[in-house]
Amino acid sequence: MEIAVIGGTGDEGFGIALRLARAGHNVVIGSRSGERGVQAAERAREMLGGDTPVDGTTNETAASSAELLFVTVPYAGQADIYRSIKDHVPPGRVVCDTTTPLATAVGGRPWQVVRPWHGSAAEQATALLGEGVRLVSGFHTVSAEPLQDLEHSVEGDVLLCGDDVEAKGQIGALAEQIPDLRWVDAGALAMARVIEPLTAIMVSVNRAYKLHDTGIKLVGRDAWGPPRG
Amino acid sequence: MEIAVIGGTGDEGFGIALRLARAGHNVVIGSRSGERGVQAAERAREMLGGDTPVDGTTNETAASSAELLFVTVPYAGQADIYRSIKDHVPPGRVVCDTTTPLATAVGGRPWQVVRPWHGSAAEQATALLGEGVRLVSGFHTVSAEPLQDLEHSVEGDVLLCGDDVEAKGQIGALAEQIPDLRWVDAGALAMARVIEPLTAIMVSVNRAYKLHDTGIKLVGRDAWGPPRG
Repeated sequence: MEIAVIGGTGDEGFGIALRLARAGHNVVIGSRSGERGVQAAERAREMLGGDTPVDGTTNETAASSAELLFVTVPYAGQADIYRSIKDHVPPGRVVCDTTTPLATAVGGRPWQVVRPWHGSAAEQATALLGEGVRLVSGFHTVSAEPLQDLEHSVEGDVLLCGDDVEAKGQIGALAEQIPDLRWVDAGALAMARVIEPLTAIMVSVNRAYKLHDTGIKLVGRDAWGPPRG
Repeated sequence: MEIAVIGGTGDEGFGIALRLARAGHNVVIGSRSGERGVQAAERAREMLGGDTPVDGTTNETAASSAELLFVTVPYAGQADIYRSIKDHVPPGRVVCDTTTPLATAVGGRPWQVVRPWHGSAAEQATALLGEGVRLVSGFHTVSAEPLQDLEHSVEGDVLLCGDDVEAKGQIGALAEQIPDLRWVDAGALAMARVIEPLTAIMVSVNRAYKLHDTGIKLVGRDAWGPPRG
């Protein structure tokens, strides 16, 4: 599958791009600057082995060609990025938004969040992209550092929310291709209002214990995946 | 230690009362009605064995005598309960608030939350109790059902936040006396704004997977407890 990672030069996006490329997908790293996209793709290929299919380009070009998109951008730039790719995303595309509205967007601290006008960054994304895009929100509890550390598997759960059950399952299946991530269906898209801020908890715990890779896992079941699956 | 569980006739409070009594503490179950407090204490003693020291009384009496308080009430009644016990809580007491501002308080759904005026239910509690009370917020991710199921240990982490490090450690130590709970310092009291809503995520996941006991655990460390401890 051809997957675009919009904002894939950032730590989280780069980590997701690495892992999905390693899982065998054609990954296109998008950036505001096509040149930086190309450079990030080169760096990814160096880490993964020369013939791994990772390319780099502008966000707009990446958005138009891919079958599925991850959008991994800081909250401060999220609205602008969605406005810039909006006309390039074909209708019906599955888009996974990983944005957390950290207060750093307005000069605050990374263990603080602000409340987006639409309720969550994911709902803002939906409002900006308009009808026809199948938005899933997730990956807020998976740190960039373990994603980029290809020597080790990633421990933790990807909590996904969204109103399109099939799209959620598609993103969930991709998450499961990253060893040892599991995915959990956390409900409708509006649940992003409470799931996005989980990143702030991770940051606060990392800060208290001087760690970099705190994650979250649900208890109550050994395997999650699609409900009633 | 003598511990009061204000609102201890509710599911969560009753579960905490059972577990702390089993750990060897003198527990007093408080209720709006002294009679219901007494009945809940009787039920607890039946479950725990006859000579376990669990008593029941009014919230006010429980608050005045205990060395440490848990306040486990629904958000709809939280402000009223704090107003009713305020003059009975001696200064310097450690109070652990477990309230989640679920939207059920205003006729909404249990996987939705409302935003308290003070930022979180815990900050509302602090505002109502006034200076001199050492407030800790926690237990939002530990379901009532596994707490009450004395045949099994409880899997999951108690995320505590609060501005008084010593008080947090005291509540954390109590949490660790409940097998197999661990406790994690999640930062300052204002972090309750993002920790309290975790209950809504648990409810949403329980609903999707038809479960009753979903919990949360952090990954990144085998043991948590006090930072730098």
